Amino acid sequence: MNSFGHLFRVTTFGESHGPAIGCVIDGCPPGLAIAEQEFRHDLDRRATGKTRHTSQRHEADEVEILSGVYEGTTTGTPIALLIRNTDARSRDYGKIAGQFRPGHADYTYWHKYGIRDPRGGGRSSARETTMRVAAAVIAKKWLAEKHGVAVRGFLSQIGDVTPRSFDWDAVAGNPFFWPDAAQTAELETFMDTLRKSGDSVGARVTVQADNVPPGWGEPVYGKLDAELAAAMMSINAVKGVEIGDGFASVAQHGSVHRDVMSMRGFASNHAGGILGGISTGQPVMCSIAFKPTSSLRLPTQGLDVHGNDVEIVTTGRHDPCVGIRATPICEAMLALVLMDQALRHRAQCGDVGEVTPRVPTETSG
Amino acid sequence: MNSFGHLFRVTTFGESHGPAIGCVIDGCPPGLAIAEQEFRHDLDRRATGKTRHTSQRHEADEVEILSGVYEGTTTGTPIALLIRNTDARSRDYGKIAGQFRPGHADYTYWHKYGIRDPRGGGRSSARETTMRVAAAVIAKKWLAEKHGVAVRGFLSQIGDVTPRSFDWDAVAGNPFFWPDAAQTAELETFMDTLRKSGDSVGARVTVQADNVPPGWGEPVYGKLDAELAAAMMSINAVKGVEIGDGFASVAQHGSVHRDVMSMRGFASNHAGGILGGISTGQPVMCSIAFKPTSSLRLPTQGLDVHGNDVEIVTTGRHDPCVGIRATPICEAMLALVLMDQALRHRAQCGDVGEVTPRVPTETSG
Amino acid sequence: MNSFGHLFRVTTFGESHGPAIGCVIDGCPPGLAIAEQEFRHDLDRRATGKTRHTSQRHEADEVEILSGVYEGTTTGTPIALLIRNTDARSRDYGKIAGQFRPGHADYTYWHKYGIRDPRGGGRSSARETTMRVAAAVIAKKWLAEKHGVAVRGFLSQIGDVTPRSFDWDAVAGNPFFWPDAAQTAELETFMDTLRKSGDSVGARVTVQADNVPPGWGEPVYGKLDAELAAAMMSINAVKGVEIGDGFASVAQHGSVHRDVMSMRGFASNHAGGILGGISTGQPVMCSIAFKPTSSLRLPTQGLDVHGNDVEIVTTGRHDPCVGIRATPICEAMLALVLMDQALRHRAQCGDVGEVTPRVPTETSG
Amino acid sequence: MNSFGHLFRVTTFGESHGPAIGCVIDGCPPGLAIAEQEFRHDLDRRATGKTRHTSQRHEADEVEILSGVYEGTTTGTPIALLIRNTDARSRDYGKIAGQFRPGHADYTYWHKYGIRDPRGGGRSSARETTMRVAAAVIAKKWLAEKHGVAVRGFLSQIGDVTPRSFDWDAVAGNPFFWPDAAQTAELETFMDTLRKSGDSVGARVTVQADNVPPGWGEPVYGKLDAELAAAMMSINAVKGVEIGDGFASVAQHGSVHRDVMSMRGFASNHAGGILGGISTGQPVMCSIAFKPTSSLRLPTQGLDVHGNDVEIVTTGRHDPCVGIRATPICEAMLALVLMDQALRHRAQCGDVGEVTPRVPTETSG
Repeated sequence: MNSFGHLFRVTTFGESHGPAIGCVIDGCPPGLAIAEQEFRHDLDRRATGKTRHTSQRHEADEVEILSGVYEGTTTGTPIALLIRNTDARSRDYGKIAGQFRPGHADYTYWHKYGIRDPRGGGRSSARETTMRVAAAVIAKKWLAEKHGVAVRGFLSQIGDVTPRSFDWDAVAGNPFFWPDAAQTAELETFMDTLRKSGDSVGARVTVQADNVPPGWGEPVYGKLDAELAAAMMSINAVKGVEIGDGFASVAQHGSVHRDVMSMRGFASNHAGGILGGISTGQPVMCSIAFKPTSSLRLPTQGLDVHGNDVEIVTTGRHDPCVGIRATPICEAMLALVLMDQALRHRAQCGDVGEVTPRVPTETSG
Repeated sequence: MNSFGHLFRVTTFGESHGPAIGCVIDGCPPGLAIAEQEFRHDLDRRATGKTRHTSQRHEADEVEILSGVYEGTTTGTPIALLIRNTDARSRDYGKIAGQFRPGHADYTYWHKYGIRDPRGGGRSSARETTMRVAAAVIAKKWLAEKHGVAVRGFLSQIGDVTPRSFDWDAVAGNPFFWPDAAQTAELETFMDTLRKSGDSVGARVTVQADNVPPGWGEPVYGKLDAELAAAMMSINAVKGVEIGDGFASVAQHGSVHRDVMSMRGFASNHAGGILGGISTGQPVMCSIAFKPTSSLRLPTQGLDVHGNDVEIVTTGRHDPCVGIRATPICEAMLALVLMDQALRHRAQCGDVGEVTPRVPTETSG
Repeated sequence: MNSFGHLFRVTTFGESHGPAIGCVIDGCPPGLAIAEQEFRHDLDRRATGKTRHTSQRHEADEVEILSGVYEGTTTGTPIALLIRNTDARSRDYGKIAGQFRPGHADYTYWHKYGIRDPRGGGRSSARETTMRVAAAVIAKKWLAEKHGVAVRGFLSQIGDVTPRSFDWDAVAGNPFFWPDAAQTAELETFMDTLRKSGDSVGARVTVQADNVPPGWGEPVYGKLDAELAAAMMSINAVKGVEIGDGFASVAQHGSVHRDVMSMRGFASNHAGGILGGISTGQPVMCSIAFKPTSSLRLPTQGLDVHGNDVEIVTTGRHDPCVGIRATPICEAMLALVLMDQALRHRAQCGDVGEVTPRVPTETSG
Repeated sequence: MNSFGHLFRVTTFGESHGPAIGCVIDGCPPGLAIAEQEFRHDLDRRATGKTRHTSQRHEADEVEILSGVYEGTTTGTPIALLIRNTDARSRDYGKIAGQFRPGHADYTYWHKYGIRDPRGGGRSSARETTMRVAAAVIAKKWLAEKHGVAVRGFLSQIGDVTPRSFDWDAVAGNPFFWPDAAQTAELETFMDTLRKSGDSVGARVTVQADNVPPGWGEPVYGKLDAELAAAMMSINAVKGVEIGDGFASVAQHGSVHRDVMSMRGFASNHAGGILGGISTGQPVMCSIAFKPTSSLRLPTQGLDVHGNDVEIVTTGRHDPCVGIRATPICEAMLALVLMDQALRHRAQCGDVGEVTPRVPTETSG
């Protein structure tokens, strides 16, 4: 199950410290212009080593298009993308080959497969998400060109810090994807203190898709929100997913939660743009909880593969808050889900005529 | 996409007020004893009309086994289950055929399909979940017999009320699946007040699976937690899913969150029994947020299918808190996910020998 | 794997002598008018007991639509069809419960599942094909309405008898789906002699789809011909499948086989309407080999479930040539494959504009 | 649909004259030793340019393992294999970019996608089958090690020439995979004459798997023979597939065709080792018809992309009989189908105990 999506189907491969990582995208519509340099922007956004607040691994992340694109245009055949690993320092990981780090997949892979690649977490490394971001570059472009869909996101909480104000324009201007520019210095200090302490914290990311037409998604098990939940929970370190108001809905009354529709539009968007598993035309909203990374300089108790107690100290290059780089990854998964649902909707309902009325979305948000 | 699961595959069909609902279960291992009366217990637990706090629709929910069982034993061929609808009062819904109720799937189905069955919500009705519970009876039995896996759940919040104490034995003793018997009267009053107000509230359900062996689940897109997230989010009215500590992880430090392993077992279970998408052997823990039902006696503004503003009043039989009956449904989805992953694990890793050490789970919880 | 198709997905269930057989059709486009009586025609064409040349089992085969159709129109939700078994004489099969009939699935089911339903072949009975024919009624109707596609077939060989002339209009006028009306008496005599001998023969069926637009099918593993091959080989008793000239291509020269295109159209159709796995716009042609039925009155050696040699005599109601009733079944599988590919094509390539030139098909055939 | 298999899932990518071809194998059991040099043998067997009777394209076909193998052993994570294209002479194909060659996929790709990669047939080139052969090296090894399954094949007809005697040992000793060593000179002359004529012929390949245990395969749509049919028909230029006696069954009597079982084994194997879609324990037998290649030096009429009549002359490097190199490809598809079914069988029926009696296979063949 290293594939994602039914019709726009992404299969990824590769280990953190193997020769390369890559993906195959099957089912992409033909006729879309795509060039290798278009992957640069989003890959840079998720890259490590760009600031002192993230892991200092430096990967060039040069994407090579191996197939499926002819003279700059998709042909409808599978698009293979390849990135060679260049900064894989396997010596960092030798000492943990015989140990199970707490909070990591070491122990579970060992029990599942009877073997594991210990170099940098092997397949369980977040490096795999690079290919999700790469694949989603294609999805984002198609969604934007064909439907005007725009996917974006921000960091909505780090530890116990939340934004004091909100400005989409601020998000790209700081290394945290933070929507309040005035808090940048505070976050820098917060992260510096955290890094020095050897500990880590969790984070929350919020992503949003605008201009999704009403009607995408499928009833019952193929619900748009169900697939978003799976998509987000499949990202490393994610422990929770919310659509719209999410867990806040528990304490709400129905008279508040239900989003009233009128000729002037939806009065609110508690639902996060999805009803009955199908998009309403309002912004699709999703929040994701990231746990604090488990790779700490702080020593801890652990086990070795022979069943003995050992002291575990992690010395590799790690993020004190994995959520900081997660915004482009969450955006990518949102784009991949929407892309797949767009094609599935066209398959079954491509000849459903325009149904009136379509509620305006201007007043919602 | 009315199918769930890859190898233990459940396909459901049926509308709330159509002739029948049913499911086909493909991929069930042969040799499992199963009888029609075994569906009774869990179907009764989720049934409407059992207390004054849930919808007063009265369905007998008699399961007929149409195939796949020979002389009381599964044969490995598809098991079809059928329940006839007997208390479908379509007259209750006639007036809303031309309207879009806020917070319901009316509007989105209309835009997706250009047609909808307005009787009782049609396919978007929670009645569909009856078949999930029925299918999961088989999964639960196989998981218990082959692996000793036990699946159970409780209501962990309703509106802003949370349990003051916790006792698994209390859960079956009240109509709310509530773990604190001392609060029953309080909840009765809460619900009576709510019902009289014409409004509704949300709820939170927590489900748990014990004795899941380490190694179930798959890396990347087939993660056990990713499939749980999709499974839970596919239930009607769900807006959020958490694994283990879920959103509380955001504010935690890694030194707290990472569950230390030693020869005496795991010291904690913040992870909810899953690391890297694969079970650890600890209890698998999942919490689910249900929104307040949108069917209220309180009038509201809405639209009709011609685009005109109308006043919407819902007069049918509805639950003031859909979460109350949701515990068996969430248990069912947990069981279905585990069943499917158990078979998938056996397929790929059926010849992986026992790997030492297996961390004891006694001290965790 | 009791499901067929990716987007127009048919899941069948039921045993020959169980309470019922049925299917669930997921992914049907909404807005198609369908009524229970529309299943009558094709079900009658495949039915047993209509002539003395086929099994004398008499089933009413009344289709009940359980879901997915509202006021006579498909809604896009799963369509469940149910047929109750009414003429299941289990007493006929009691004696063979402990034996493996040669040429039947008794032995293989026993080894796979460790259990089998011996009544009438259980799941391995050709009765399952009833639901393929039923599901294909919907596919045929959609294909005809949306694309003008017409699916038809005939018996092209029985034993060593082949048609001496060809006339589509003759096919419906005899119980053999035979294209040469002048041979009807000859075939009657052939079958009467065969039936009296207690033996059986094989047959060949040829099916054809006209007006399939160029472009349906997918490269590599989703080839239109690959899916046709699987579809046909999944029918009981099929041992071979050919597309276009099939095995005759082995001895052909390329200068003969390649179908020359010009502005006046294709000069021939050796390819059977498919090149590179994708339809050319010419008639899609497929031939299918059916083995002689293995249920004979002639005694034979066999084994019982304890491993002892026994004499096997089959006394139930059986067809001396299963191929006679197979034409509607092969048509059904052709229609199901085309329907699924039509939706898949629309999903990926729904915005590919009309590409000139489209070669006329008038001169081909 | 560039993926094959459900649990042992192979996804291929790459165009004939693009930068590379490759595949991702998902679901491989862990713990299997595999090295890059093990791909050499089968890739050489299918390679072009080895004799004067096949296309003179010379590819090194060096396989690079990009992932899923750690220290020489499979880890259970996806195995990516990559082969760089080194002898892609695009100048050979420039002139046909604007034309549709008869018998090729040019016209159908054009209509499906509105764009095509004309270099060497692009995705529709038989070069794609290289990766099937590579992936099957892993499947063959696992099948042999775990179950003793042996997969092999031979050329059973070329044009109108058939073997006069049969000897498995002869197959590897000539460039035709021909089972009668005495005919080698005859075939050399046949091919030389054919090549000089500028024309081509078809061929028939027969493949066989020994030691397949009874019980592999699934009823109805997942039949072992149905999946073999799809697998073989998905190979370029295939027009027909037979299981066991195939089309010869049409003229057989049931008293001949049904393979009698006794305590001494099966008396014959007309069924080709499959009954009811499930393996019997006898050799699984499959024959495949290849059409004559359509790329001829003989000029022919054709169309250009503007709809005008043109003369088509193909000058590239092509096989006068594509079937000659097809034996390893057919073996590969047989191995991939068996591998996938082996895992699926273990998933559902892994705890079915040994069922007596198992019919000896010694006397069959």
